[in-house]
Amino acid sequence: MLSKNQIKFVNSLKQKKYREEHNLFIAEGTKIVPELFVSDIIVKQVYATSEFFRNNKIASTIERFEIKENELERISALMTANEVLAVCETPQHQLKMDSLKDKLTLVLDDIKDPGNLGTIIRIADWFGIENIVCNNDTVNAFNPKVVQATMGSISRIKIYYTDLIDFLKNQESSIKNQVFGALLGGESIYEKTLPLNSFIIIGNESKGISEKLLPFITDKISIPSFSHYKTVSGEAESLNAAVATSIICSEFRRR
Amino acid sequence: MLSKNQIKFVNSLKQKKYREEHNLFIAEGTKIVPELFVSDIIVKQVYATSEFFRNNKIASTIERFEIKENELERISALMTANEVLAVCETPQHQLKMDSLKDKLTLVLDDIKDPGNLGTIIRIADWFGIENIVCNNDTVNAFNPKVVQATMGSISRIKIYYTDLIDFLKNQESSIKNQVFGALLGGESIYEKTLPLNSFIIIGNESKGISEKLLPFITDKISIPSFSHYKTVSGEAESLNAAVATSIICSEFRRR
Repeated sequence: MLSKNQIKFVNSLKQKKYREEHNLFIAEGTKIVPELFVSDIIVKQVYATSEFFRNNKIASTIERFEIKENELERISALMTANEVLAVCETPQHQLKMDSLKDKLTLVLDDIKDPGNLGTIIRIADWFGIENIVCNNDTVNAFNPKVVQATMGSISRIKIYYTDLIDFLKNQESSIKNQVFGALLGGESIYEKTLPLNSFIIIGNESKGISEKLLPFITDKISIPSFSHYKTVSGEAESLNAAVATSIICSEFRRR
Repeated sequence: MLSKNQIKFVNSLKQKKYREEHNLFIAEGTKIVPELFVSDIIVKQVYATSEFFRNNKIASTIERFEIKENELERISALMTANEVLAVCETPQHQLKMDSLKDKLTLVLDDIKDPGNLGTIIRIADWFGIENIVCNNDTVNAFNPKVVQATMGSISRIKIYYTDLIDFLKNQESSIKNQVFGALLGGESIYEKTLPLNSFIIIGNESKGISEKLLPFITDKISIPSFSHYKTVSGEAESLNAAVATSIICSEFRRR
């Protein structure tokens, strides 16, 4: 049986304020939670059905609560609860510029949609990108919707929040990576040289890359469109932010 | 003022049953509706604020209803209504095998998530793919969530629903396109020859391509992963269906 306080506590973690206060986040489902058990993420509590406990070995350091499905529904952030909810410690990574040297790193400027951020984290995992640097206004990576959309990749990628202007200034005077940004009139990514010591800036879903970051971009790139049509505004049709990220990462990696 | 019957009628179009009964669908927002005005889609009614009517020229054949924002909220399918809702005729395209000859066409096998289908339609538009053939269980393309996620591309792409086994049998004995499917152990898309007279089968979000379609695949492909990790199940990490579609389409087009 779940107590009222437990229900209140777990539900509070759906809000950023309480996640930060407790330094905890929630993850759910039989696909994602077992990934966390074998990752560097510290799982504190597991709320699950008897079936989940039968099928999964749980470390003795984790507090376990066997509950019924209807109780799980009361703490779940999913449309349909799925056997298990885990409360985990939010990892705290220190952003060290040297660790980004000679690597491909994503820089997110104001990604607002949790599904997009989750998908971008999953793409980073697929393409062996270890670090994602976000501006402070990008949606919180430990938002339950983001965690779900990562399908477990959240446990394998280091995500930092910082002031991007300071960050890009610092890197210019230290590791000097190339900085790529997708912009109208940029060079086709299919033809461009794409070195591995690079930052790729991904802009906001509707506004693109902020004007204040443009001076830091060393290489303007674009994904060529093969569309037969022009839109009303006369601009080229756009791609979803996560889709654009995937095509750019694929191009960097295939060479 | 909207009548109760109007509110009921527009809201009914959020359900597939009523969309099919009336052969109508709804589209919303200042980005998408103006795209429909200049497309082949027949717009029947526009429900909009005075501001929208001030800023947009509307053909005289369209019934117009000037309403207040709080009335728009009552018929909108969006979290936040956005100036305009249009009721449009659902286009009926006849699937003719010959029109798919020498072209790149997407074949969707059981795509369930409206956001994924919308994003795939948008990707098709970007890469100049004119036709998408779906199995009958793929989510309905005129579902309001799909329409929104296409960002207007729904007006430019022909979408067909059919039995995929019959369809793939017919194409084998007529136009004989190559049939590509992303499968474990497939050849790297970065190294494979990718001809333009091809079908690309995209499988269900969790189950992949159905077993009954496998015999029709002439070319097994895969998107190489660069991940440093293995997942618990030992399988390779997966990519979201729309993301995989975008990387595959990009590879077909860049050559």
